[in-house]
Amino acid sequence: MKSNEPAPVAPRNKVTIHDIAEKLNITASTVSRALNDNPRISDVTKKAVLKAAKQLNYQPNNIAAALRNGKSYIIGIIIPTADRSFFASVVRGIEEIANKLNYKVIISQSYDNYDKEVQTVDALLSARVDGIIASIGKNTENFDHFKRPQEKGIPLVLFDRTTDDLEVSQVMIDDYLGAYKVVEHLIQQGCRRIAHFTSPKKVSIFKERLRGYLDALRDHEIPFDESLVIKSNLQLEDGRESMKQLLKLEQRPDAVFSASDYGAMGAMQVAKEQGLKVPQDIALAGFGNEPFTSFSDPALTTVDQFSLTMGRITAELFFENFKQSGDNKLVPQKTVLKPELIIRGSSLKGTGPKK
Amino acid sequence: MKSNEPAPVAPRNKVTIHDIAEKLNITASTVSRALNDNPRISDVTKKAVLKAAKQLNYQPNNIAAALRNGKSYIIGIIIPTADRSFFASVVRGIEEIANKLNYKVIISQSYDNYDKEVQTVDALLSARVDGIIASIGKNTENFDHFKRPQEKGIPLVLFDRTTDDLEVSQVMIDDYLGAYKVVEHLIQQGCRRIAHFTSPKKVSIFKERLRGYLDALRDHEIPFDESLVIKSNLQLEDGRESMKQLLKLEQRPDAVFSASDYGAMGAMQVAKEQGLKVPQDIALAGFGNEPFTSFSDPALTTVDQFSLTMGRITAELFFENFKQSGDNKLVPQKTVLKPELIIRGSSLKGTGPKK
Repeated sequence: MKSNEPAPVAPRNKVTIHDIAEKLNITASTVSRALNDNPRISDVTKKAVLKAAKQLNYQPNNIAAALRNGKSYIIGIIIPTADRSFFASVVRGIEEIANKLNYKVIISQSYDNYDKEVQTVDALLSARVDGIIASIGKNTENFDHFKRPQEKGIPLVLFDRTTDDLEVSQVMIDDYLGAYKVVEHLIQQGCRRIAHFTSPKKVSIFKERLRGYLDALRDHEIPFDESLVIKSNLQLEDGRESMKQLLKLEQRPDAVFSASDYGAMGAMQVAKEQGLKVPQDIALAGFGNEPFTSFSDPALTTVDQFSLTMGRITAELFFENFKQSGDNKLVPQKTVLKPELIIRGSSLKGTGPKK
Repeated sequence: MKSNEPAPVAPRNKVTIHDIAEKLNITASTVSRALNDNPRISDVTKKAVLKAAKQLNYQPNNIAAALRNGKSYIIGIIIPTADRSFFASVVRGIEEIANKLNYKVIISQSYDNYDKEVQTVDALLSARVDGIIASIGKNTENFDHFKRPQEKGIPLVLFDRTTDDLEVSQVMIDDYLGAYKVVEHLIQQGCRRIAHFTSPKKVSIFKERLRGYLDALRDHEIPFDESLVIKSNLQLEDGRESMKQLLKLEQRPDAVFSASDYGAMGAMQVAKEQGLKVPQDIALAGFGNEPFTSFSDPALTTVDQFSLTMGRITAELFFENFKQSGDNKLVPQKTVLKPELIIRGSSLKGTGPKK
């Protein structure tokens, strides 16, 4: 490296391998290899490098520094998938707060797969994160892997897909209320045979949405018809299949409330393919306010989960836990956010479809 | 911990703090604190724990193990945002290959922000990843931060948004060809005044798409009209603004090819709001094949980038580099994938709009 070339600035370490290289008039990669005990570097060079490193008070790497002070300034996030605007926005909210406090964020995806989820915990612990923020996969029923961080004194906070089986703080949305509001709105639009797409999984968010659906029907004295509740994975294809099933019923529904936006979008495709008008013939509503819900024609009525806010609140709760862990045992707290009903053309019958 | 309760299995380390806890009849968290030299643990306990740890050949943590063998079995990925189905799919493809080889994957997002991108490199190095796979942010013009991993002997491979300023292997899509195919298709549909939405940024993907647009016009002897090329950030709102600008022209375009699907979707919204029929009055095409492009009405013609395949190929190239790094200097290689034109209703004039 030429001496008139500025050395790249390394984080937190004042002295870099470039300084050692410059001092000894050798390349940075030789220094790096010498420090890593590479057999291709002569013993003479190795000794010279180690001596210079000591003189300059070089700190070999962040790992060694981390071993000393036990801090990596990295928060690990576990999510089922980042390819969902909900999770992506929550992560964005977490990063906003974390970055202000000079923490960096790394993400590991479970893809709703239990084994992978266990591995994400391993990966983040190997990456020696200072704490973990997680949303649990749909198929997870044993939560032991989430106990490992806590055993190592690494704080854990859960959001959205949470469990009461772990003694941790949680941030979630009021799924029951969101679903209740959707169904109440559909009833106000004159719908009486309202179908519901739900998930067979044990995840509380779907159970809560189903509960909201049932209670709204009951409170408005609409009899419950089991044939109108369809269980699936709630993806686009599932929504299509579920809608085809519904349209074969002798008494067709006049509305569908899907526990996911993807399911509702599949239902809209099939309804339109079969010549039904949305919302005149069948009103539709989803849950989640994915961006594409405003791209469809008509745009989809849905429930907004304030994902960015949820991320910020989760991070704030996390850092509160973080400050206190080690000293006082913090009592795990649960924060429940209120969702917002977003009414769009797919359900607004009154004055015809609106944007 | 009760002795009849199976101890959680820790990765790669045979002996866990649970074994030490069991041997000494204390809790695992006490062991953990003792090993971390927590002041709340008595010296007597600390000594006992250290002695038991030594007897059982306990390896304090993965960090220490990593320091010894220099392997974390973690690959770090840097992407502008995971909230784009393109990037999410590439990551999925990378994970598929990595997991087969027992590597885990962590992600860090740059949000197209240069400072954040520099921090992602820091974060991944602090997390002592074994290698980095990255797609460069739109606003990055200095690539020095990407030299740091290489200086530490940590292999780097770039995909999609790459640069020739770094001596690394790259995997990209033939953006020129994709754009050329789109514009040729629009010309075949009878369009003659074809507008183009592009980015003012220096990222090669947008320059290549613009070049494909220009060459397709030239090859079909359609004169280039500068007023039909609109530069923006290519988000939904930008697409709306750009379309409004185009519709104010004395000679309106009869087609728009947007270098991003979001831009094309914004254009579709405005066209419909102003009573124009798509594709009869104005044909539309995007780039990227984001899932929402099949949700719009009409569905959007676009270019598929084989993101999953791109991820797999990137990972394969990475592990090839990985095997060889340290020993022989690998000559950086460039892999260019061919994109596929997806023709949908937004551009198909011939026999009326189709699905």
